[in-house]
Amino acid sequence: MPELRKDPVLGRWVIIATERAKRPKDFTHAPPVPPAERACPFCPGNEELTPPEISRRPGPLGWAVRVVPNRFPALDSVGPATRQGSGIYDRVAGVGAHEVIIDSPAHDRQLADLSADELAGVVAAWRERACALEQDKRLRYVLIFKNHGPAAGASLEHSHCQLIATPVLPVLVKSELDGAQRYHRFRSRCVYCDMLKQERTDKARLVAEHDGFLTFAPFAPRFPFETWLLPLEHFGSFAALDERRVSGLARALKDALDRMNRVLDRPDYNFVVHCTPLDCPDAEHYHFHIELMPKLTIIAGFEVGTGFYINPVPPEDAAAYLRGEK
Amino acid sequence: MPELRKDPVLGRWVIIATERAKRPKDFTHAPPVPPAERACPFCPGNEELTPPEISRRPGPLGWAVRVVPNRFPALDSVGPATRQGSGIYDRVAGVGAHEVIIDSPAHDRQLADLSADELAGVVAAWRERACALEQDKRLRYVLIFKNHGPAAGASLEHSHCQLIATPVLPVLVKSELDGAQRYHRFRSRCVYCDMLKQERTDKARLVAEHDGFLTFAPFAPRFPFETWLLPLEHFGSFAALDERRVSGLARALKDALDRMNRVLDRPDYNFVVHCTPLDCPDAEHYHFHIELMPKLTIIAGFEVGTGFYINPVPPEDAAAYLRGEK
Repeated sequence: MPELRKDPVLGRWVIIATERAKRPKDFTHAPPVPPAERACPFCPGNEELTPPEISRRPGPLGWAVRVVPNRFPALDSVGPATRQGSGIYDRVAGVGAHEVIIDSPAHDRQLADLSADELAGVVAAWRERACALEQDKRLRYVLIFKNHGPAAGASLEHSHCQLIATPVLPVLVKSELDGAQRYHRFRSRCVYCDMLKQERTDKARLVAEHDGFLTFAPFAPRFPFETWLLPLEHFGSFAALDERRVSGLARALKDALDRMNRVLDRPDYNFVVHCTPLDCPDAEHYHFHIELMPKLTIIAGFEVGTGFYINPVPPEDAAAYLRGEK
Repeated sequence: MPELRKDPVLGRWVIIATERAKRPKDFTHAPPVPPAERACPFCPGNEELTPPEISRRPGPLGWAVRVVPNRFPALDSVGPATRQGSGIYDRVAGVGAHEVIIDSPAHDRQLADLSADELAGVVAAWRERACALEQDKRLRYVLIFKNHGPAAGASLEHSHCQLIATPVLPVLVKSELDGAQRYHRFRSRCVYCDMLKQERTDKARLVAEHDGFLTFAPFAPRFPFETWLLPLEHFGSFAALDERRVSGLARALKDALDRMNRVLDRPDYNFVVHCTPLDCPDAEHYHFHIELMPKLTIIAGFEVGTGFYINPVPPEDAAAYLRGEK
């Protein structure tokens, strides 16, 4: 069973794959190129190539969106989240969920190529899975993200999102929660709500406003053309993402992807959805948001080892390009 | 002038290059391959190709180690570290230092190919520059790191380290300082000293012990074969890195690089040196260390956007390989 381990200084949890562990030569010898004739496990007609389906949203080809377990899950779905100490170290059994949301039956359509209504089906699938996993009392967080393209870590071409549900909090979400709580303690206001207000006033970093969602380049972005999407209304959980908000988010996300694709010629990219932890879905101080990061530069150990980023594109410039003004 | 900007939630500073900013096409069109006949600016005889030399350590070819300003510095060396607020946001003028330490005159010798004594000259150059910059009251931190190989972000082949001195703390160092201080407050002990003790007892993650430095795979590593080097004696600053410790660190680092190169076939890699901030060099709770990270996997926005890492190699396995037992 995989194991979650905590850095004793930073409180940062990592998943350690204790089974199927890789050996040095798995890294030093390039993996064999998958044969072109191999069937895509995410295409209609090949449904038996994935582990048993978790859910589907109906569509003309049998389904429009399909959710399946990851074939090589980072976490196990069965067993208790046993917590264990050894000296100064902490570990938790690697229980949780690792699922794949297949965005559409079409092999060649990127997420941005879907219609806003089709994309709303994908977002609705995120919500459905997040709300279902919320019932699992072993879990503390549901992380939804997308790796698009090989440079962004995608191993399959057919468009898909991923979901990882964990019995611990990802360290950056924890840091955001702590920072947002500190802000709230002094001011009794949500820092993200204040950010929205300031961005709408400053205007320099605004990209678009769509159906209740604001898209902007954050004030201190790590990456060129990093873009955030926040709902104008304050909420934090997937449970609060009602039908209207699902539709608004889908429209805002499609617009953001379209702009990024136009300016940067369809780059590889990642996005991560940050929501409230499962045990405090209605936190007054935390605000649902999506961080969209085109993969344009190498992220080296330096950045990761220090948390220090050098960004060659001011967010004001990025926003102007994304607005179509540059 | 570049600008340092702070994320209002995380307290994370980033450097925004406001001049020489890149445009979208700088990312979407591959940069021209540098002509092979172009002279290496770090080779002896081409000294005039670098900005004016900061210092050198003498050697048979005129110099053994040479320190020069980065030709494309991320920070400016002149001007006050003016701090400015605007609404919820903070910014600081991007003053500081960005230097290059040329490890040796030989174009084709990696850091690991140097003798222990030659490597000690490189470490002594780090110390010399760190101690010189400590006098600059605008600065709070000196960050020394190495990007080796294109996958690790190196743009020049000739072996070199880099130094960035900043008027702010890198967020991960800040988080380590905070975590270590919390630990110290409860126990009046340094968490890193306790870690050293436990690693020497547990033995499973030990790689080597050399001249007062312990090399081990950390309990919760983000990356396959990530390795840390810590002095057994408690100290935090470059000022405390006396002649004997410089020599010990050089021997330990050479040994760690040799082991990594043997097991992983000379991979691209990064390392970062974590020391105490300039305003509290003798902190009882913080401990000098080096984090060495071979670049074996793609670091995607997912990891960076959540701080959540999945590591397919347990550190106990990595240590056994690095000890030569596997």
